[in-house]
Amino acid sequence: MRLKIAVLAGDGIGPEVTREATNILRAVAELGGHDFIFTEGLIGGIAITETGSPLPTATLDTALDSDAVLMGAVGDNKFNALTPDKRPEAGLLQIRQALGGFANLRPSVAYAALSESSPLRPEVTKDVDILFVRELLGGLYFGAPRWWNRETGESINTMRYTKSEVTRVARIAFDLASKRRRKVTSVDKANVLEVSQLWRATVTEVAKDYPDVTLEHQLVDSMAMHIMNTPRNFDVVLTENLFGDILSDEAGVITGSLGMLPSATIGGAVNLYEPVHGSAPDIAGTGKANPLGAILTAAMILRHSANLETDAKAVEEAVHKVLNEGYRTADIARGGPSITTQEMGKLVHQALAES
Amino acid sequence: MRLKIAVLAGDGIGPEVTREATNILRAVAELGGHDFIFTEGLIGGIAITETGSPLPTATLDTALDSDAVLMGAVGDNKFNALTPDKRPEAGLLQIRQALGGFANLRPSVAYAALSESSPLRPEVTKDVDILFVRELLGGLYFGAPRWWNRETGESINTMRYTKSEVTRVARIAFDLASKRRRKVTSVDKANVLEVSQLWRATVTEVAKDYPDVTLEHQLVDSMAMHIMNTPRNFDVVLTENLFGDILSDEAGVITGSLGMLPSATIGGAVNLYEPVHGSAPDIAGTGKANPLGAILTAAMILRHSANLETDAKAVEEAVHKVLNEGYRTADIARGGPSITTQEMGKLVHQALAES
Ligand SMILES: CC(C)[C@H](C(=O)O)[C@@H](O)C(=O)O
Ligand SMILES: CC(C)[C@H](C(=O)O)[C@@H](O)C(=O)O
Repeated sequence: MRLKIAVLAGDGIGPEVTREATNILRAVAELGGHDFIFTEGLIGGIAITETGSPLPTATLDTALDSDAVLMGAVGDNKFNALTPDKRPEAGLLQIRQALGGFANLRPSVAYAALSESSPLRPEVTKDVDILFVRELLGGLYFGAPRWWNRETGESINTMRYTKSEVTRVARIAFDLASKRRRKVTSVDKANVLEVSQLWRATVTEVAKDYPDVTLEHQLVDSMAMHIMNTPRNFDVVLTENLFGDILSDEAGVITGSLGMLPSATIGGAVNLYEPVHGSAPDIAGTGKANPLGAILTAAMILRHSANLETDAKAVEEAVHKVLNEGYRTADIARGGPSITTQEMGKLVHQALAES
Repeated sequence: MRLKIAVLAGDGIGPEVTREATNILRAVAELGGHDFIFTEGLIGGIAITETGSPLPTATLDTALDSDAVLMGAVGDNKFNALTPDKRPEAGLLQIRQALGGFANLRPSVAYAALSESSPLRPEVTKDVDILFVRELLGGLYFGAPRWWNRETGESINTMRYTKSEVTRVARIAFDLASKRRRKVTSVDKANVLEVSQLWRATVTEVAKDYPDVTLEHQLVDSMAMHIMNTPRNFDVVLTENLFGDILSDEAGVITGSLGMLPSATIGGAVNLYEPVHGSAPDIAGTGKANPLGAILTAAMILRHSANLETDAKAVEEAVHKVLNEGYRTADIARGGPSITTQEMGKLVHQALAES
């Protein structure tokens, strides 16, 4: 098969982890006789520095002309003083919007080999397998009006959702749940927010079309607790943009490191793939970055854009194998011996080739 | 000393835990020769049922005429279908606004005796002592416009802050930090939200007046992770209303049960005291509710409204003693033997009398 992949490595550790992910994709293509075509583009802080814009038109054109977009990470402390619309993150929000994917899938899985890396007790994390479905194009991220008036000292952001925005992402959550353990936990703050009431009513309505999927509602504050106390109780967790941002990072402690977490954004013109971790400028270039989040993100490309489920699983199993053999990057080494970003990438590559 | 306390027991387990808290306050008054005058008032679901309003005028008058307001909990599933303004929770939001307290103090402390009740490893929770300062009168909870148009299927809430709202709550956080371990962690989402940029700039400005307090900024998503990974790194955590709602509940897993957590809201005309837990209608009347959150809330009344620091400490130590002796309510019993709400209250009372 043939797949055009736009690679937007971005800032900080973005380029180094993305390199390992594309190596794995190249290996899969070679092993399977597929034709994966990679085109690079600028985004984020590096794009601001080189072109003045966090999402140059050339990048957007490349992305829209691709079958999948693989992002590294964006964000650079040197732009911290700028308003949101001028920061590296604006490039990320713009490309999310331009590609149109509204359902951000974030698996949160416990690896037996990493159970000691989590602050949670092993008996709590054992066998946890949660799939967050985070709405990615609505809520406070994109709502208008939004401003900060420095003269009057007043500032506003708008949380906005429409029924159709909620319906479409809820359908994806229920579709995914029906192929998993058939439970959707929808998270909102319906005891306070009108937007959450729309959310809850809409999700409840969509649920009627999925009689074999159980729906439960949780308030976001309680959920922040339940997800630590009883993570095994959850299968698919559906929520709005900002709640999903917070809860999926929180759930990173189940796996043990943000560096392990992949994500895929589906439902739009072109799927967008990005590891959950940020640009981590403090460790960029040191070889300490964990490439497994990016590599597992590559597996999601194989699954959701290339329809190569067997290869996706093979990559995931290669990651398991390397972890089971005891190899660790610094973030999951718990002070023990660690290997570099590149070494980890090579080991996964080897394990994949041998499988 | 003389103290007028309005007691608004509310819904679900509210009345049963509040009873234990007022018993403790009565004991303190008797032991110390103080004059605590309790006046009861309706709030929440019970107030809707009996008067049609979640915050009847009589209750508000009683509250405003008191030196401190002790709340139980509000919320009742039978009102779930109603819009936020008609629900029991509206009574809570109205009284918060009417009393004017904008700084909600939520201590999150690890008890050695309860270390097995937390899903976190004991070495992670050991000696944790965080004080959340949650802004309580701004943000999405109170911002206008806010509506859900069922015809068009569109809904809006508004996150709004002004510089003066941020300044006053930041001052409280820094004042408290300067009497503790001298560190403030301010939590926002400044890489996306304009409101968070106002928040961050304002907190940074306030920090200049507190040269011996260290200020750090964290993004809310990262913070949701850090607080589980390295809770000992935090002293005072300052944040806006909804982020504080989510993070302080999450931090409940450090203590091991929401049933243990007290809160005090200061800065307004009358201080408002409420345990962090909800009305838990499923266990109301079963004797399973943990009264320690309410009792520790009573200790906060002694500290912040009665200026009886020694008595506040004595109550807290009585709670420690009873826990150290192994007594547990159901929520912290981990399946082992448990005692009732009332029994727990009596034991704390005894420990206090003996101290
Ligand atoms: C970098 C930031 C804008 C982004 C977000 O908040 O969506 C990140 O935290 C994420 O979760 O992908
Ligand atoms: C009951 C609800 C309105 C309330 C809130 O969100 O403030 C509660 O969760 C709390 O934290 O006190």
